[in-house]
Formats: sequence, structure tokens, C-alpha cells
Amino acid sequence: MNISDKIRVIEDFPRKGISFKDITTLIKDGEAFKYVVNTMADNLRDKNIKYIAAPEARGFILGSAVAYALGIGFIPIRKPGKLPGETISFEYDLEYGKDELVMHSDAIDIGERVAIVDDLLATGGTANALAKIVEKAGGIVVGMEFLIELEDLKGREINSEYDIKALVKYNS
Amino acid sequence: MNISDKIRVIEDFPRKGISFKDITTLIKDGEAFKYVVNTMADNLRDKNIKYIAAPEARGFILGSAVAYALGIGFIPIRKPGKLPGETISFEYDLEYGKDELVMHSDAIDIGERVAIVDDLLATGGTANALAKIVEKAGGIVVGMEFLIELEDLKGREINSEYDIKALVKYNS
Repeated sequence: MNISDKIRVIEDFPRKGISFKDITTLIKDGEAFKYVVNTMADNLRDKNIKYIAAPEARGFILGSAVAYALGIGFIPIRKPGKLPGETISFEYDLEYGKDELVMHSDAIDIGERVAIVDDLLATGGTANALAKIVEKAGGIVVGMEFLIELEDLKGREINSEYDIKALVKYNS
Repeated sequence: MNISDKIRVIEDFPRKGISFKDITTLIKDGEAFKYVVNTMADNLRDKNIKYIAAPEARGFILGSAVAYALGIGFIPIRKPGKLPGETISFEYDLEYGKDELVMHSDAIDIGERVAIVDDLLATGGTANALAKIVEKAGGIVVGMEFLIELEDLKGREINSEYDIKALVKYNS
């Protein structure tokens, strides 16, 4: 299935000069959505993974469906203030300023194998923060699955220690 | 399966006096997560539903997995400013102030059958807004599926025209 045809490109969102890859047109197509989730799940099968971890909000859409497809648990990684229990956090640099992700401290036990799922690999900063927070809890990051990779932003470079797969690749 | 045992109750979150139902302990349990998604999907099967619609962010976790389980498309309903395409919006009253949800204008065609999925039915305001925005786009709301219902908050009252199911019920 040619899933790149299902992704809609919207220029100048969220700000001028950005060519936004809109996945809502893909995920509303039941066949395309199933194909993406099954492909990600197949890439992660037989790796003895206990959890899928994914960031809010778009990451939840693919991550939870992949977890369900594999019959394993799902761990949400969120912005500060959203999780009710005790959390651990990881702060990381953005182009301008900083951002922070948090996860429940008791979400992952030491040595548990976790895969990360998100819609987009861009500069790789968020992906790296997701991996670092899983590792901070004692987890092992077994792989990272993305729907889209913006190759010219070189997100693989700071994540070179991880096994990364992306289904659709763009160069600007 | 007794899924209520998997839900963790955390007192005084997000503010004093609220007994927060934390579903992260349920969804990290692969068996419990699968049971919840399968139950919701079974409730919606054979109703000729084209899409599952769900609100960010926790609604995405259950909504997308239910859509995948049924082999149908998923439509995210978001807070303003997050969706890149042309949107329609629905504003609704909160206890203090107002809130607004938006959906892509072209997400649903006239007469298409849609089910709403969310983690929690409380006062019913968000659920009602979700239904109204689907209807504003021309869709038909075939059912609403919730993991948790806080019965004493009477969320069914303003949604009495809809077919509502909830898996776990609490009274304070």
C-alpha cells in the first residue's frame, strides 16, 4: 500500500516555512491505518517487548494501537502536570528554549524492554528524550518506530545508538 | 476480568477534593488493555460505523485502539490550534469558564456513522461537545463508549439522546 499518498502536506503550519505532514487523512482511512499499525507491530514482534511508550498527543494514536496489536501494555509519556502519580522527568533543548517530558516513576521496572512509537522523527530531540526517560526508569529501549522521518533534519544522528525504523521519508 | 482493580485512585488530583481515576495502571497491563478495547469494539460491531472519534489526549489511547480493532478509521478531536487543516469548532461551558473542541471540517461526510470513545464520562459536557461537533459536520453519532462513568455527576442526563456504555462505574 502506498501510504505516502494518504498523508496530506499543509504549507506554513504551525508557522511560515514549515511544510506540515498531516497524518489525520491517513488514520481516518481504516485500511491505511491498519497497514501502518500492522507494519510497526511486525517490526517489533519477537523482540520480547513488554511495553510501547509514546508521547502525547499524536504519539498516543499510533502507540496505543501498536501495543494493542502486540497484546502488550501502553505507557503514556506526557507534558508536566498531566500524570497524577509520582513522576520522573527529562528536560531537553528545543531550537528556542527547553521542553520537558514526564512519565510515572513506577511505569517501568528495571530491565524491562520497551519500544518507542511516534508519528514523526524530525530533529530527534523528542525521540531522544523519550528514550532517556525510559532508561532513567531502568528500561531498555529495544527500538523506535516512526510513521514519518524528515531525513534532512538528521534525527538519527543523536539517536544512533537506537534501532530506528520509519515508514515514510521526506526531504525538503 | 475485574478491570476496576487495575484502575488506581489518586486523591486530590488535579486539585483538592478530586478522587482521580488513573487508568495508566490499567493500560500498562497488556491483558487488561486488550480486554477493555475488545469490549468496546464488540459493543460497536455490526453497527455499520465508519469512524471512531475521540478527544485528546487520553481519549486517543482507547479510541485509536478501538478503531484499529474494528478495522475502521480514527478521527482526532483536539483543542484549538493543533489541527493543520480547516476546522469546525464547538464551544461549551465548564464549571468555571468555557472550553472549545475542534475537528477537521472535511473529517466526516454527511450521513457517516461515528462512535465516540473516551476514558471518562463525568458531567457529560465534553461528551456532549464531541457529539455536537460530529453532528455539525453532518455525521450521525451511533454510540458513546467510556471506560469509566462517575455516575453521581449525571453525565447521561444531557446526553440522553445517545446510546452510552461504560465499563466501570463509580459513585463518590
